[in-house]
Amino acid sequence: MSFKLTILGSSGALPAYGRFPTSQHLAYLNHNFLIDCGEGTQLQLARFNISIHKISHIFISHLHGDHYLGLTGLLFSMHLQRRESDLHIYSFKGLDEILLAQLKHAKSVLHFNIIFHTLTEGKQETILDAETFSVDTIPLDHKIKTSGFLFREKNKSLNLDKSKLKPGISPEQIAMLKKGLDVLDEHGNILLKNSEFTMAPKVPLSYAYCSDTQPHEAISAQIKGVDLLYHEATFMEEESAKARETKHSTAAEAGRTAKQGKVKKLVIGHFSARYKDLGPVLTEARNIFPETYLAIEGDSFEITN
Amino acid sequence: MSFKLTILGSSGALPAYGRFPTSQHLAYLNHNFLIDCGEGTQLQLARFNISIHKISHIFISHLHGDHYLGLTGLLFSMHLQRRESDLHIYSFKGLDEILLAQLKHAKSVLHFNIIFHTLTEGKQETILDAETFSVDTIPLDHKIKTSGFLFREKNKSLNLDKSKLKPGISPEQIAMLKKGLDVLDEHGNILLKNSEFTMAPKVPLSYAYCSDTQPHEAISAQIKGVDLLYHEATFMEEESAKARETKHSTAAEAGRTAKQGKVKKLVIGHFSARYKDLGPVLTEARNIFPETYLAIEGDSFEITN
Repeated sequence: MSFKLTILGSSGALPAYGRFPTSQHLAYLNHNFLIDCGEGTQLQLARFNISIHKISHIFISHLHGDHYLGLTGLLFSMHLQRRESDLHIYSFKGLDEILLAQLKHAKSVLHFNIIFHTLTEGKQETILDAETFSVDTIPLDHKIKTSGFLFREKNKSLNLDKSKLKPGISPEQIAMLKKGLDVLDEHGNILLKNSEFTMAPKVPLSYAYCSDTQPHEAISAQIKGVDLLYHEATFMEEESAKARETKHSTAAEAGRTAKQGKVKKLVIGHFSARYKDLGPVLTEARNIFPETYLAIEGDSFEITN
Repeated sequence: MSFKLTILGSSGALPAYGRFPTSQHLAYLNHNFLIDCGEGTQLQLARFNISIHKISHIFISHLHGDHYLGLTGLLFSMHLQRRESDLHIYSFKGLDEILLAQLKHAKSVLHFNIIFHTLTEGKQETILDAETFSVDTIPLDHKIKTSGFLFREKNKSLNLDKSKLKPGISPEQIAMLKKGLDVLDEHGNILLKNSEFTMAPKVPLSYAYCSDTQPHEAISAQIKGVDLLYHEATFMEEESAKARETKHSTAAEAGRTAKQGKVKKLVIGHFSARYKDLGPVLTEARNIFPETYLAIEGDSFEITN
């Protein structure tokens, strides 16, 4: 299995140097998620050949324009292309008011249903609980109510060692083996010993998205050990006063959060327009957490198990 | 004098092939106007090195998303870059409601004033009356209330033939000559004969913007003889049924409107995503009105007198 994360926008509030406002696409199995949707997201999706029709769930972290202003245009494009399947949108309250006003003045009735899920401020909660994965909110610490998102595979059943399987083992017996059970005969004797037929399941994958936020103790606990962490790094340490004033993080702080959380890999983004060259921003984070990478439009990060 | 029009977006409602939704920048003297503001307009302004700070007036034709969804992002960027000067926005009612909802949920108070001017449906009116130019609305015929805009230089005073001026002619006498008057001496005799010192004024420049609309008799009358007409050409004739259904125009219809209006030059845009190659669209319009050009992102059209 794999999560494939594609960066659509890496810019902070003020877009610069061709960088787009925040948006990411996350693919897992046949699921396609959009995380934040800054202005121009639909153009970026087209540029990187990602179909807008497959997107089933959109997660909006907060209602600063650079995180959602591309949403209405995307919805209208889905509508014009005759989308009919439901679309789930997760956001704090307010986005619904804005969307409804926009639809009303355009006199538009969309061809598809939007199912609007309202996030709760400051409270970690499971907002999507599917068969193979779940999505939890990560309460963040920003100027307005803001939430990150934690995508996690669920614990898997045991892997069968197919080389050991012989003809005559029934589907029911295989299901028992996958659950970790021995298969017994009618007298209670072991017919198929579980440990001979199975291998340990793969460790579930996890991806945590944290933007926008200043460092916040609770984040490190919640993201503990994730395979991939995206954390905003709007500023460098020399601008730490500005980072506090605007409730953002520095690259070093993103690195420290990753280190404390013992994550496997860190991607930083939401770069201030003051940084044309992102090399020093990356270096600052890598000095603390070497496995750090820059969010660059079009770059993908794939995690597999 | 000159009007310089720069195309920022040429696409119809569904952006495709790297074409952006509708937006244009118009420069005249030290004035900078923005006409419509589709998603990504601020990115296009940056790409074509047009300062967002100089823009003083924004004209929004109607409240379909592809004509205004870039506005809020642009306003936030002006705010983040500490704009303080007033910004005039002309639009039908509804845009104010949308902007206020967005500002409320972002908990943002802009550093500058927005002066919101409400357009009147179906009525031609002068919405901006400055010393050297005026802007009138052009009522259009679309699915929701929509207005084009007519930018016109005002009639100019006579041009002085500077080679004829001699020392001793006072500023007051020059002013009289410019007004078309002869200068008389105390006895009522002609001292300076106007026709000897002046040349006819240059013909005032004019630019008409018409998007979105189906052909509409009143448009031709109002745009009569303009130097430059932008007219939407969403479809080609083979899709004329679709054009009627969606209240848009074909390229041939745009050409006919230009021909009837005896305009000097026509620019067509708002192209449907079904046309990757715009060559045939241009040919269709040119067959009726040869002085037709395609709106292409980054292209400028300069008219001078």
